[in-house]
Amino acid sequence: MPSTIVGPSGHPLVLATGRAHPELAKDVAKELGVDLLPVTAYDFANSETYVRFGESVRGADIFLLQSHTSPINQWIFEQLLMVDAAKRASAHAITAVTPFFGYARQDKKSRGREPISARLVTDLLTAAGADRIMSVDLHTPQIQGFFDGPVDHLWAMPILVDYVRTRLDLDNVTVVSPDAGRIRVAELWAAKLGGGPLAFVHKTRDVTRPNRSVANRVVGDVEGRDCVLVDDLIDTGGTIAEAVKVILSAGARSVIVAATHGVLSGPAPQRLAECGATEVVVTDTLPIEESKRFSTLKVLSIAPLIATAIKEVFNDGSVTSLFDGNS
Amino acid sequence: MPSTIVGPSGHPLVLATGRAHPELAKDVAKELGVDLLPVTAYDFANSETYVRFGESVRGADIFLLQSHTSPINQWIFEQLLMVDAAKRASAHAITAVTPFFGYARQDKKSRGREPISARLVTDLLTAAGADRIMSVDLHTPQIQGFFDGPVDHLWAMPILVDYVRTRLDLDNVTVVSPDAGRIRVAELWAAKLGGGPLAFVHKTRDVTRPNRSVANRVVGDVEGRDCVLVDDLIDTGGTIAEAVKVILSAGARSVIVAATHGVLSGPAPQRLAECGATEVVVTDTLPIEESKRFSTLKVLSIAPLIATAIKEVFNDGSVTSLFDGNS
Amino acid sequence: MPSTIVGPSGHPLVLATGRAHPELAKDVAKELGVDLLPVTAYDFANSETYVRFGESVRGADIFLLQSHTSPINQWIFEQLLMVDAAKRASAHAITAVTPFFGYARQDKKSRGREPISARLVTDLLTAAGADRIMSVDLHTPQIQGFFDGPVDHLWAMPILVDYVRTRLDLDNVTVVSPDAGRIRVAELWAAKLGGGPLAFVHKTRDVTRPNRSVANRVVGDVEGRDCVLVDDLIDTGGTIAEAVKVILSAGARSVIVAATHGVLSGPAPQRLAECGATEVVVTDTLPIEESKRFSTLKVLSIAPLIATAIKEVFNDGSVTSLFDGNS
Amino acid sequence: MPSTIVGPSGHPLVLATGRAHPELAKDVAKELGVDLLPVTAYDFANSETYVRFGESVRGADIFLLQSHTSPINQWIFEQLLMVDAAKRASAHAITAVTPFFGYARQDKKSRGREPISARLVTDLLTAAGADRIMSVDLHTPQIQGFFDGPVDHLWAMPILVDYVRTRLDLDNVTVVSPDAGRIRVAELWAAKLGGGPLAFVHKTRDVTRPNRSVANRVVGDVEGRDCVLVDDLIDTGGTIAEAVKVILSAGARSVIVAATHGVLSGPAPQRLAECGATEVVVTDTLPIEESKRFSTLKVLSIAPLIATAIKEVFNDGSVTSLFDGNS
Amino acid sequence: MPSTIVGPSGHPLVLATGRAHPELAKDVAKELGVDLLPVTAYDFANSETYVRFGESVRGADIFLLQSHTSPINQWIFEQLLMVDAAKRASAHAITAVTPFFGYARQDKKSRGREPISARLVTDLLTAAGADRIMSVDLHTPQIQGFFDGPVDHLWAMPILVDYVRTRLDLDNVTVVSPDAGRIRVAELWAAKLGGGPLAFVHKTRDVTRPNRSVANRVVGDVEGRDCVLVDDLIDTGGTIAEAVKVILSAGARSVIVAATHGVLSGPAPQRLAECGATEVVVTDTLPIEESKRFSTLKVLSIAPLIATAIKEVFNDGSVTSLFDGNS
Amino acid sequence: MPSTIVGPSGHPLVLATGRAHPELAKDVAKELGVDLLPVTAYDFANSETYVRFGESVRGADIFLLQSHTSPINQWIFEQLLMVDAAKRASAHAITAVTPFFGYARQDKKSRGREPISARLVTDLLTAAGADRIMSVDLHTPQIQGFFDGPVDHLWAMPILVDYVRTRLDLDNVTVVSPDAGRIRVAELWAAKLGGGPLAFVHKTRDVTRPNRSVANRVVGDVEGRDCVLVDDLIDTGGTIAEAVKVILSAGARSVIVAATHGVLSGPAPQRLAECGATEVVVTDTLPIEESKRFSTLKVLSIAPLIATAIKEVFNDGSVTSLFDGNS
Repeated sequence: MPSTIVGPSGHPLVLATGRAHPELAKDVAKELGVDLLPVTAYDFANSETYVRFGESVRGADIFLLQSHTSPINQWIFEQLLMVDAAKRASAHAITAVTPFFGYARQDKKSRGREPISARLVTDLLTAAGADRIMSVDLHTPQIQGFFDGPVDHLWAMPILVDYVRTRLDLDNVTVVSPDAGRIRVAELWAAKLGGGPLAFVHKTRDVTRPNRSVANRVVGDVEGRDCVLVDDLIDTGGTIAEAVKVILSAGARSVIVAATHGVLSGPAPQRLAECGATEVVVTDTLPIEESKRFSTLKVLSIAPLIATAIKEVFNDGSVTSLFDGNS
Repeated sequence: MPSTIVGPSGHPLVLATGRAHPELAKDVAKELGVDLLPVTAYDFANSETYVRFGESVRGADIFLLQSHTSPINQWIFEQLLMVDAAKRASAHAITAVTPFFGYARQDKKSRGREPISARLVTDLLTAAGADRIMSVDLHTPQIQGFFDGPVDHLWAMPILVDYVRTRLDLDNVTVVSPDAGRIRVAELWAAKLGGGPLAFVHKTRDVTRPNRSVANRVVGDVEGRDCVLVDDLIDTGGTIAEAVKVILSAGARSVIVAATHGVLSGPAPQRLAECGATEVVVTDTLPIEESKRFSTLKVLSIAPLIATAIKEVFNDGSVTSLFDGNS
Repeated sequence: MPSTIVGPSGHPLVLATGRAHPELAKDVAKELGVDLLPVTAYDFANSETYVRFGESVRGADIFLLQSHTSPINQWIFEQLLMVDAAKRASAHAITAVTPFFGYARQDKKSRGREPISARLVTDLLTAAGADRIMSVDLHTPQIQGFFDGPVDHLWAMPILVDYVRTRLDLDNVTVVSPDAGRIRVAELWAAKLGGGPLAFVHKTRDVTRPNRSVANRVVGDVEGRDCVLVDDLIDTGGTIAEAVKVILSAGARSVIVAATHGVLSGPAPQRLAECGATEVVVTDTLPIEESKRFSTLKVLSIAPLIATAIKEVFNDGSVTSLFDGNS
Repeated sequence: MPSTIVGPSGHPLVLATGRAHPELAKDVAKELGVDLLPVTAYDFANSETYVRFGESVRGADIFLLQSHTSPINQWIFEQLLMVDAAKRASAHAITAVTPFFGYARQDKKSRGREPISARLVTDLLTAAGADRIMSVDLHTPQIQGFFDGPVDHLWAMPILVDYVRTRLDLDNVTVVSPDAGRIRVAELWAAKLGGGPLAFVHKTRDVTRPNRSVANRVVGDVEGRDCVLVDDLIDTGGTIAEAVKVILSAGARSVIVAATHGVLSGPAPQRLAECGATEVVVTDTLPIEESKRFSTLKVLSIAPLIATAIKEVFNDGSVTSLFDGNS
Repeated sequence: MPSTIVGPSGHPLVLATGRAHPELAKDVAKELGVDLLPVTAYDFANSETYVRFGESVRGADIFLLQSHTSPINQWIFEQLLMVDAAKRASAHAITAVTPFFGYARQDKKSRGREPISARLVTDLLTAAGADRIMSVDLHTPQIQGFFDGPVDHLWAMPILVDYVRTRLDLDNVTVVSPDAGRIRVAELWAAKLGGGPLAFVHKTRDVTRPNRSVANRVVGDVEGRDCVLVDDLIDTGGTIAEAVKVILSAGARSVIVAATHGVLSGPAPQRLAECGATEVVVTDTLPIEESKRFSTLKVLSIAPLIATAIKEVFNDGSVTSLFDGNS
Repeated sequence: MPSTIVGPSGHPLVLATGRAHPELAKDVAKELGVDLLPVTAYDFANSETYVRFGESVRGADIFLLQSHTSPINQWIFEQLLMVDAAKRASAHAITAVTPFFGYARQDKKSRGREPISARLVTDLLTAAGADRIMSVDLHTPQIQGFFDGPVDHLWAMPILVDYVRTRLDLDNVTVVSPDAGRIRVAELWAAKLGGGPLAFVHKTRDVTRPNRSVANRVVGDVEGRDCVLVDDLIDTGGTIAEAVKVILSAGARSVIVAATHGVLSGPAPQRLAECGATEVVVTDTLPIEESKRFSTLKVLSIAPLIATAIKEVFNDGSVTSLFDGNS
C-alpha cells in the first residue's frame, strides 16, 4: 500500500492519477504526505487505452484524480477505466476527483434534441462505479444534483482573493463582472476585498436600448480604479479580453483578471497577453503547458485546497468549512 | 376507455387528474376532446390518501396532471400514488404533467447538509414509475437534467406576450426585470414586444457600492414609460410589489406585472393589489381560488398549451415548435 | 458531532428527528445518552418544506426518526428530504426510523387500479437513499418484504403486557380480539398473561348466518371476566368502542383496551372515553396531543425499545432478542 | 411466428411453456387458438438446464407459463432461463405466468435471519427480465407488492363454486374454514352459494382455554349439514384431513373439500382419500400425476381462466372483471 | 421525419451517424432506402463535443451508427452523447450500431487491478440509454453477455467467403489460422470453401518444445497450395505479415489474407503490402482512409449486411438467419 | 458470533455453507480457525427450501460457500436464499463463494434464442444481494465481466502441479491438451514442470483434412513419454478417456489426467477407471461421493487455497499473488 494513512474506519487512503494532469496529483500527494499509487496507463496502436494499478487497492478509500483537459473525451474515458479497475479490485470507496469538471456548460437542453452532457458525465461515473465526486467551482451548482450521491464542491475564491489582495491598493479596487449573470460572484469578491464598488460589462448590446447594436460598455464606476475582472473559467479568452479593453477605455487605471479554471483554448494566451490586463490569475485545476504561458499569467496552486478536502473526506470531517458559508 | 383517441402505435390516450387543480384538467380535456378518466381520491381519517382509477388504463398512454400547489407535499404524494396505480394497472407509458413543478427553487445545495429537493422530486417520480415529465417554465432549466428520461419543457411566454401586447402602446414599452439574474428573459420579452428598452431593479443594495445599504433602484430608462415587469413566478409578492413601487417612483407612467406561475402565497394578493400595478398577469398553471383574486389580476389559460403538447407527445410529433427556438 | 458514541467500525452514531414527533426523539436520545442532531426544518410560504442539518454527518450511522402522523404526506415528505440531505452529506448508513409506518394498511390491491401504497412508501425511502428501515408492529409483516434491505421490526407487546399485568387479577383475565383476523395475536397475549381464555368479536354479521344482519357478538367466555381487548392500532375507534360495548353487554366485569399505535383520529377520543372501557392503553409511537387525551387513556413510552434497538443495530448486535421469538 | 394473433399495438402473441406443467400450457393454447412456441429444454449430465426457443420471438408479447411444482427450484430456474432467452431475443414484453407461485408461504420473516423467499422469487424474475407476473390465488395478496410492476392476480373461486353448486343441495350447505384465518374466504363462498351458515375448525387447541390441550373442534352449525371445506391450497393434507374428520364427528352429513391449488405432497392422496370427504375438488394449476389421483378427487381445468386473462392482457382489456370485485 | 418507413408497431425507422465513419452510414441508408437523420456534431475549442439531431426522433426506432475507430475514446463518447440526446428526445427504442466494437480485446482481467474495458463500454451504453447493441464479429462472443439486453451479433464470413471464392482455384485451397486459438473459424471457412485442408501457424515458439525459442512454423499441408489466412481483425499487422511469410517459406503457392475488421494501425499497411500476400481482404466495418490503402488491399462493403439486420430488427423479423446457424 | 476474527474495519468474519458441499466448508473453516455459522436448511414436503442462520450476522463480512454440484438448480437457489437472508439480517458484505461456478459453459449465445445462463447466474446473485463472487478456475475468464463488482478468481494449478510433480520423472514428461483450445494452459503446465514438450489431441477429425472423418490423433511427441493430460473440468469423461486411449496408442509410457473440477457425471467414473490412465487427479471444488470414487482417482484439497483467499479479502490484502501472475 503506497500510503500509511489509515482513516477512522480502518480503510487506507490511496491517491491515484490518470495522465491528464499528473503534476497536480503529485502536488496533492505531497500536501497529503502520501505516495501516489503506481499506475500503468498507455494507449494501444489503435488508440484503445489501457490502465492498471501497480499495487493493491483492496479496502482502500481511493481518490482518482483526473482533470478534464483537452483531449477531454480521452481523459474522461481514462478516468472511467480507472474507476472500473478500482471497483473490480475491491476498493472500499471511490471518489472521482475532477478539479475541472468537463461538459459543465452543457448542463441543460438549450434547444430540443440535444443531450444534457454534464448529466451524462455523472451517469457514466456512476455506471463505472464512482461513489462520490469532488470538484472545484462547478459552472452551475445545479450539477451537484445530477449525481445521486455526495458531491464535494470546493471553492477556489479564497485562494484567488488572497493573492489579489497582495497586488492592489485595496482602497482603490473595483470588482467587475464580465456579464450580468456573474454579479453575485463579484459581490462576494467585493465583500472579501473590503467592500469596494462593483461594475459589470454588457456583452453585445446596450441593455436599455436592445435594438441599437452598440459596443460593449461598463456599468458602474471604474474610472481611475484598479479593477479585478472575475469569472469561473477562461476558455478562448474572447469575452474576457474584450471586457478588459472596455474597462480600460472607460478610464480604469489597471485591470487584473482572476478566474478559477484556465482552460486557455486556442487564441486565449495571445488575446490575454495583448488585452492590456496587468495580470491574469488562474489556478492550476487544469494543466497549463509552457507554450500557453505568457508573461502576465500567474498560476496559483489548487493542490492545498484539494488535499485539505481529501483529508476531511477521509477523516469524516466537514468540508463545509472549505466553502466559506457558500457551498 | 374514456377516450376514443388512439395514437400511431395503437395505444389509447388517457388523461387523469388529482385533486390539486381539477379545473385545469377539465380545460385540457376539453381542448383535447376527451373525457377525464374517472378517479376516486380522498383522505382517510388519519390523513392517508386513497386513489383509484374508475376505468381500465391497461395499454394506455396516461397523462397524470397535478400542479404542485399548497399543501404541496400532499399533492406531490397524491400524484405519486396515481403513478404507482397506473404502473400496476399496466399503463403503457406514464407522463407526470406538473404545470408548476414543486421545489424547483431548491435545485442545489446552497449550503452543506441540505437536500437537493428538486432532484428528490424527480427521483420520487421515477421510483413510482413515471416515464416522462411535462412541465411549464421550470425555475432553472438544469432541472431537466435531474430526470433520467424525456422532459417536455413548455414555454408560457407567447401566451403572456400575446395578452400584454393588447394592453399597451408598444412604442412606449420598457421591459423590466425584478433582479439582475432575469435580464435574459426580459431581453426575450423586449424582442417579442418589438424591441423596446430594458431595465432592471437592484434588490437590497446599490451594486456599485455594496457596503452602503441604500434602497432598491432602477437601472435603465423608465421615466414616462409603460413598463412590463416580468418574472417566472410570484410567490409572496414582496420582491415584485417593491419593484413596482421603485419603478413608479422612478417616474414610470404605468407598470404591468407578468409571470407564468401565480403562487400568490400569504400576503401576495394584498401586496400586489396595493402596489400600484395597472394589471398583474399570470397563467393558471396553479389554481387561484376566489379569495386570492383581486381586481387588477388577470389569469390566462394555460390549457391550450398543455393540450397541444400532449397531442404532440401522443402523436410522436415535435414539441420543439412550442418552445419558440428557446426550449 | 453531537454524540461521542462510536461504533465497532469507527462510525459515530447520530440521531435526528423531523417535526412529526420530536418528543419521542428526545426520549430516545436521552435513553441513548446522545444529543439530538440540530436540525433546521420549516415550511416556506407556499408550503414547500426546507430541512438542513446543523452539524456534519459525514461518515455517521444516522438514524432519522419520523413517525407518520397526520398530516402524514407532509411528514413522510419531510423524512425523505432528511434522507436525501444525509445521503448528499456523506452519511455512512441511513436508517429511517418510523415507529408508526404510514400507509401500512394499503398493502395490497384490494381491487384493480389501486396503488400499493405501503410498497410505494418503501420505494420512496429507497429512492431518497435509506439503507435500512426500523419500525414497530407493522400492520402486516409482509411489508418487510416490500423493502430491498434490512427491516428491523420491533415488537411492542412486552411493554403493553408488562403494564396490563399490573392492572388485573390474572386469574380472571380473558383476552379478546376485535375480529377473527387477530386471534393469533390474542393467543400470544393470553400465553404471556398466564394462559387465560380467549374470545373474539364478530364485526357486522353473525358468521353462522351471514345473510341475516344481526349485531356484533362475542364468541367465547367473557361473562364475569376482566377482559383485555387487543389490536395493533386504534384509528377512529369505532370498531374498538363497539367491541367494548358488546363485551360488556355479554356480561364482562371490565374491559381494558391495549394497542400499540394510538392513531386516535377524529371521534376516537370521545368514542373511547365513553365506551365503557376501564382503561385504554397505547404506546407513544405516535404523538398524542393534549386535546386527544382523556381520563382513561394510558400512554406508555416506546422510547426504551427503540433506543435498545438502535444500540443493537449500531453495535452490530442482535435485534432478534427484542422480538420475543416472534419477529 | 407460431400464432397469427396480433394485438392492438402490432405485437404478436406468443405462448411458451417449460417442462413443469406442459398439459396446462396445451390447454391454454387451445383455448386461445394458438400453437405453443416450440421450445427445446433438457438437462445436461451434470444437471445444468438448457433451453432454446424454436422460432423467433422478436417483438412478441410472450407469455412464459411454468407452474412451480416439485422439484420447485428446478422449475423456477428453468423459467428464469426462458425469461432471459426471451429478453435477449428481443421480445417486446415478457409475462411470467405462474399459476401456482412458489414460496408464497415464505412471505415474511417469521423469525430473524430468515430470507423472504417469495420476495426473492419476484426479484429473480425481475433480474431475468420479466415485465409482468400472472398468477392464480396468491397465498397472501401482499405478494403483489413484492413485484415492481403489474401483477395480474386471477381468482379461481368462481370455477370451484360453479362445480360445487352442482353437487349439493344448496339449502343444506354450510361453508367451513379449516382455521380462523380463512373465515373471510369462507364468507365469500357462502355468499356465492346462496347465503348458508358458516363454521370453522380450531387447530391444535380450544381457543377459550388455550392452556388445556384439547382436540380440534368445530365452531358453528354443521350437524346434519352438507359441508364445503375451503382453502387456497392442499399441501400434505394433514390439516384438511383432520378438519374433515372433526366436521364429520360433529355430525355433518357430508363434506366436500375445495381448494385452488392441489400441491398434494407426500401422504396427501392417502390422507384425503381416507378422511371421509365425499369429494376433494381442486384445479389443475399444478400437475397431478396419475399416482396421486384417487377416486374422490375431482380436478377442474384452470385453462379457460388463464386464457381469458392472457387475451385481456394482450388486447389491453380489463382483468378486473375476472376478479369478481375482489382482486 | 427523414424516413417514411414505419414498422409493424407504428414506430418510424430513423438512422443516424456520428463522425467516425459517415461513409458506411450513407451506404447503409442507401441500402435501406431512407435518408440519414441530419445531425450537427462538432468539437468546441476546449475539445468538448456537441451533438444535436436536426429533426424530431420522438417515437422512433433509432439506430445510431458509430464504428469505434481511432481516436476511439472520442468516438465512443460521441456515440454516448447521441444516445443521451435520443433518450431525452423521446425516441421509442435506441440501438447502438457498432460495426467494430471497441475495447473488445480487453474482455477479462488478465491480471489483477485491471478494468474489464469491454464490459465498461456496454455499461456506458446502458447508462446513456441504449436498448440494444448491434455489432459485427465480436472478438469473443462472451461480450454479448456483458450487455443486459439484446445484442444482434452479425457474421461477416459469408461476405468474405463469397469474394475469396472468386479469386481461387477451390481445388487447391488450404485455409490457415494465424494461431491455434482460431482453428475453429478456419474450419468453418474450409467447410464453406468446399472442404479443403487446414493449417495453422505457431506463434513465437515450437509448441512441442516450449523452452527452445525457435521461429514460427506452419502445422499442416501448405506446400504448393493457395492459402487463405483468416482472422477477425488486423491491427498492427505484425502477426499476420509474419504468418504470411512463414506460409510462403513453407512452400505455399500464394496467400490471401481475409479478416472482418481492418484496424490497420501504424505500420500495418506497409507490413501487409510487403509481406508477400497476393491480396488482403477486409470489410469496411472501420473507415480506411486513402493513406492506409495499398495496391493489394481489397475492401468489401459491410453495408448490405447491416442494412438487412436493421430491417429485420425493425420489422420484428429474425436475425438468426444472418448467422448461418452459428450466431 | 461464531468467530472471533475481526478485520481491519471492525467487521467480524463469518463463514457459512449450504448443503451442497459441507465437507469443503468444514475444511475451509478449519484452515481459517473459525467455526462455521450454524445454518438450518431443509426442504418442505413440496420441495420448497428453507434456510435460517442460527446466530447474528449483523455487521459481518459473510462468506456463503456453495459449490454448484448436482442438482445444480437446487443448490444455486439455496445459495440465493442464504444471500437474501444475510442481506435482510444486515450483514456488512456478502461474498458468494462458488468453488465450481455453475452454468459457466453457457457463457454466450451459440445460436439465436438461447439464454446466456452464466450471466443469468451472476444477475441472480446480484439481485439477491451478493457484493462479491469468489470462484476457482472459471471456464472462461470473461465470466468475470458478467458481474458488476469484484470477482476473486482463484487458480488451482499450483496445487495440481505440486502433486503431479511428485508422481513423475520430470525429465520424461509431456504435457498434453485434450483439444486445440487448451494449449495455452498446457504451456503454463509445461513451464511449471520444467519445460518439457507439449502435445494435443484433435477431437473428431483430422484438422488438415476436415472432410475425412478419421479418428482422434495426437499432435506432438508422446512416444515413450510420461504424459500429463490437463483440462479445467471433467464432466462425463468421454473426451478425456478417449484422449488417454489415443495417447497410449500413440506409444506413451503412461498418462496422468489432471483437472481442477471433478464433475464426474454419469459414466465418468467407469470411463476414467477403464481408460488406462495411471492416475486421475482433481481437487475437491465439488463433492465426490464414495460411489464415484475409483482406485486411480486422487482428490486434492482446495480448502487451503480458498481459506487463504478469504483471509486476504477479509484483511484487505492482495489476492493477485494467488494467481501466479496469471489471473
